[in-house]
Amino acid sequence: MAVEKLKTGIMGLDKILKGGLRRNSSILITGAPGTGKTIMALQFVYYGAKDYNENGLFISIEESLDDIRDFAENLGMNIREMEKKGKIFLFSKPITTLSGGLASIKGLLDLIKNKKIRRVALDSIIFFEYLYPKINHNIMEYRRQVLIFMQKMKKAGVTFISTSERKITDIDRLEYDMMDFVFEGFIILSRVRKGSYFERVLTVEKGGGRKSSQ
Amino acid sequence: MAVEKLKTGIMGLDKILKGGLRRNSSILITGAPGTGKTIMALQFVYYGAKDYNENGLFISIEESLDDIRDFAENLGMNIREMEKKGKIFLFSKPITTLSGGLASIKGLLDLIKNKKIRRVALDSIIFFEYLYPKINHNIMEYRRQVLIFMQKMKKAGVTFISTSERKITDIDRLEYDMMDFVFEGFIILSRVRKGSYFERVLTVEKGGGRKSSQ
Amino acid sequence: MAVEKLKTGIMGLDKILKGGLRRNSSILITGAPGTGKTIMALQFVYYGAKDYNENGLFISIEESLDDIRDFAENLGMNIREMEKKGKIFLFSKPITTLSGGLASIKGLLDLIKNKKIRRVALDSIIFFEYLYPKINHNIMEYRRQVLIFMQKMKKAGVTFISTSERKITDIDRLEYDMMDFVFEGFIILSRVRKGSYFERVLTVEKGGGRKSSQ
Amino acid sequence: MAVEKLKTGIMGLDKILKGGLRRNSSILITGAPGTGKTIMALQFVYYGAKDYNENGLFISIEESLDDIRDFAENLGMNIREMEKKGKIFLFSKPITTLSGGLASIKGLLDLIKNKKIRRVALDSIIFFEYLYPKINHNIMEYRRQVLIFMQKMKKAGVTFISTSERKITDIDRLEYDMMDFVFEGFIILSRVRKGSYFERVLTVEKGGGRKSSQ
Amino acid sequence: MAVEKLKTGIMGLDKILKGGLRRNSSILITGAPGTGKTIMALQFVYYGAKDYNENGLFISIEESLDDIRDFAENLGMNIREMEKKGKIFLFSKPITTLSGGLASIKGLLDLIKNKKIRRVALDSIIFFEYLYPKINHNIMEYRRQVLIFMQKMKKAGVTFISTSERKITDIDRLEYDMMDFVFEGFIILSRVRKGSYFERVLTVEKGGGRKSSQ
Amino acid sequence: MAVEKLKTGIMGLDKILKGGLRRNSSILITGAPGTGKTIMALQFVYYGAKDYNENGLFISIEESLDDIRDFAENLGMNIREMEKKGKIFLFSKPITTLSGGLASIKGLLDLIKNKKIRRVALDSIIFFEYLYPKINHNIMEYRRQVLIFMQKMKKAGVTFISTSERKITDIDRLEYDMMDFVFEGFIILSRVRKGSYFERVLTVEKGGGRKSSQ
Repeated sequence: MAVEKLKTGIMGLDKILKGGLRRNSSILITGAPGTGKTIMALQFVYYGAKDYNENGLFISIEESLDDIRDFAENLGMNIREMEKKGKIFLFSKPITTLSGGLASIKGLLDLIKNKKIRRVALDSIIFFEYLYPKINHNIMEYRRQVLIFMQKMKKAGVTFISTSERKITDIDRLEYDMMDFVFEGFIILSRVRKGSYFERVLTVEKGGGRKSSQ
Repeated sequence: MAVEKLKTGIMGLDKILKGGLRRNSSILITGAPGTGKTIMALQFVYYGAKDYNENGLFISIEESLDDIRDFAENLGMNIREMEKKGKIFLFSKPITTLSGGLASIKGLLDLIKNKKIRRVALDSIIFFEYLYPKINHNIMEYRRQVLIFMQKMKKAGVTFISTSERKITDIDRLEYDMMDFVFEGFIILSRVRKGSYFERVLTVEKGGGRKSSQ
Repeated sequence: MAVEKLKTGIMGLDKILKGGLRRNSSILITGAPGTGKTIMALQFVYYGAKDYNENGLFISIEESLDDIRDFAENLGMNIREMEKKGKIFLFSKPITTLSGGLASIKGLLDLIKNKKIRRVALDSIIFFEYLYPKINHNIMEYRRQVLIFMQKMKKAGVTFISTSERKITDIDRLEYDMMDFVFEGFIILSRVRKGSYFERVLTVEKGGGRKSSQ
Repeated sequence: MAVEKLKTGIMGLDKILKGGLRRNSSILITGAPGTGKTIMALQFVYYGAKDYNENGLFISIEESLDDIRDFAENLGMNIREMEKKGKIFLFSKPITTLSGGLASIKGLLDLIKNKKIRRVALDSIIFFEYLYPKINHNIMEYRRQVLIFMQKMKKAGVTFISTSERKITDIDRLEYDMMDFVFEGFIILSRVRKGSYFERVLTVEKGGGRKSSQ
Repeated sequence: MAVEKLKTGIMGLDKILKGGLRRNSSILITGAPGTGKTIMALQFVYYGAKDYNENGLFISIEESLDDIRDFAENLGMNIREMEKKGKIFLFSKPITTLSGGLASIKGLLDLIKNKKIRRVALDSIIFFEYLYPKINHNIMEYRRQVLIFMQKMKKAGVTFISTSERKITDIDRLEYDMMDFVFEGFIILSRVRKGSYFERVLTVEKGGGRKSSQ
Repeated sequence: MAVEKLKTGIMGLDKILKGGLRRNSSILITGAPGTGKTIMALQFVYYGAKDYNENGLFISIEESLDDIRDFAENLGMNIREMEKKGKIFLFSKPITTLSGGLASIKGLLDLIKNKKIRRVALDSIIFFEYLYPKINHNIMEYRRQVLIFMQKMKKAGVTFISTSERKITDIDRLEYDMMDFVFEGFIILSRVRKGSYFERVLTVEKGGGRKSSQ
């Protein structure tokens, strides 16, 4: 059985990924502040809808949907147009009410099925820390919940991307996070000083494409 | 929709920021002791009022307002004059009564609306640690409260700056803080040894300008 | 009494191991994300069944068995065929019900005996952290449970391999984990930068072959 | 309003401080064991009384007043004489009874007012850790109490110096402490190896002179 | 009173130790996985019995006695023969019942006296962590229990060796453990890279020979 | 008032200390295992009694008094003879009963007064961790108790030395301990590699001689 590759549509990335992401897999995009994690998550959903006719869902946790729409537009992605065409869906919950576990987002799965969503981007995985505020005392329960969510995404037939915050991206001091082991692929975004300016660098650490469906 | 830039009026900074800060965004100014965080926060409010006709609010947490006024004056910023003209407002609460959550500063939002405030500077974000004394045990609640405050600022139409304390600013040992991910832009102030003296250095790590309105 | 060596069948590894693993021993395969831990665990079971006529069991904790089957197939290992021949067995438990200690996997030992299993691969040792969610507060109980499991494997006459997650594999910063002391052998998988690309590196740290039967 | 500078009277220091400390400010003197923190605190009080006619108060927490007197005398500062003249006051509390918060030192403020004290030296800030023994669990309460004490000093018109213990002073490994952000100025005392001997080094990290009156 | 030296019988070691270990002392052998700690503990007991006519006791905590016997045999030490001659004794307790403090091994001391044991090797000191599972919360109780055990060994006239696990042995990053201070002597086993292979290195850090009898 | 110096009698040390220790002061001797902390503490008491006619007390916490006597004798110090002459006293408590605070050693002060003790050596400061087993949760209480003990020593007119364990002595990684700030002087014993052997090094970090009488 050959591996079906899904083109991200993000310039340069598909080449690095040797054709794209594995369809139906889960990918973590991690990086320091300002490295472009949200941009990549948006591009994944936008170009999927525009160039590959795949409906997409973008879940924003800490930013308003209008900010996301404006931000994308400034980068040349007309999300609003795609929303009108029913090809992209944006989802958010007021941060004041974010708690109580996965039950509070039950509607999401129905949306994915009814709207034939093929790509989901979660910005960011901090989402699960709001839902499970005591995770420091029960790290395994947190891991379990992320895995269950990923399994639901996989079962629903979507390819799933999530962003995550990383406090150190310097390759010489890098320490892997628990989540880096849980996702099937993961991409590190960083900046490397080249003389007097910083250059953006993208590292694909794992791209094989397995994990977490059941 | 083009991004509207807001000139800080701070010498040199607008050039580095390619025209200024994004209007209505939130910026974190972080640095070691003595790197000039309070100065920059004051300049942001002062030059906004003086050169760009934008009313400003400066919130001081651990210093008396008279100390702030004297300090600014010594740097050539006549805050008192601007206060008389009704263009700058200073706000403080006795540290002895600082607790009990955001409710204790409810008056702030009315002030912002009534006085047509366009720029708010908070010195410093330690403010939220006084309001939520148990944050070590519930880091997500602390994050949530800062975000809610930022959303209120954004809704009120202000551009919001906050200072924050940073124990290490050495670029080779730098580790990002949670707050660096929450604000839309963030600026690091530091000193770098150049032979026998130290030179002040300003690094704009993130300036895109999104996050936290709802 | 001469040591009986068991050929892993993995290209190159048997040479490094000077003939193979010690039969009936326990080996830990550890590494960063994407270093090929699951691949090695699968090869151990697959080539044992195919080339050395030893029945094998592969226990997957966080990945679905179908994902494992597809993944192996893409690497040229036809697990499904071996399953049909009754030479390889795959085992999994829904992550939602993973808790309650070793009792919940009692059926495993019967399977091993009835099916004459000689090789068992556990992917990964995180398994025990799901079973004993409070291990941070009782690290010795966690150690004890892993040892008891290893003793049962040894008593059943199997050679046992487990994968484990390692957050740092850089040889200059390496710190041994508790589990590295518990297994009889352990192998570190890592990547080392060679100019512009990364080379996979395998280090056999301990291969003598003792521990944990009783 | 021009900044009034207060000469410390300590040889060399006033030059480094460009005329002295800002009158009515708060300064932290920090360093490793044996770097001369207590000496500098004593000199500040002694030369203020002797050469600038400013009454001074020295608060000792862990050393007996007689030890302090002898120690100063060996360094050529006749504290006893100044005490007789009513220009220097020494204060101490038995360590066995040191607890119960600021209430236990209420008499201090009366002393400062009645004796027209202009300079206060606290040796050391560990004082507040005795008063608030549970600070590890409530770091913000500790910060608040130090600030309240500093505000009382400022209101009373005194210039305030405190010593603090620092476990690492090596400039390449230095990490700022919370207290470094709270005081208006802070001075690091350290030793730097110069070939075969150590040279004392004084670094003024922050000397602007604001913070904490109310 | 001259110090009586006890030859270990381990090739090369007696020379490094300038004649051997101090009789009736306690020695800690520490190292990373696979550095040969168990081998050295076995050699100590085996050569004592074989070459110096001293009865020995080997206490195994996590490995079965048969594994120990086989392992020794592969290294050329015929433990079984020595057991038959009543010169070496092996002791183990099922790990499932290992708890409840020193009372659970009361029989050991009788064995030592009755069998005229002169050398005892404990593999490893993790033993005490099983007996006192809450040591993280009461580190001094753990220290006390190890000392009491060592005092009993000393009173019984035996020379006592224990192995211990060490997560870092790199000399430049080494940090001493509490146990390194408690034993009278301690030996670090490590590997140092010499070009393309690793060389085993033995460092005797402390060999004076005092502590813990009462 | 001139500082009275007390000759330690330890070869070389008095020269480094420019005449000796300050009489009636408190000194901490700290170092890694095997650096000679106990030897220096013994020499301080022994040569004081033998060469300077000062009665001494040696307090041993984890080693038996006979071990201490033998150990000293091997180093050429005939403690037993000095004990017979009533010039040196050894004190110990069974480790099994070591708890309950300073009350449990009340007899010590009487001994010091009755026997005209001028030098006291405590081996080691771990003593206070046995007496206050919960110090991790109340570090200030531990500090207070050590200071009270030091004040009692000072009041009794003795010069007081204590040994302490230090896990890192490498000068480039050294971090000061709380106790380094509490004692009036402190001496670090370490080993520095000189080509193929280690050289013992003694560093006097603080020798001024103040603190803790009341």
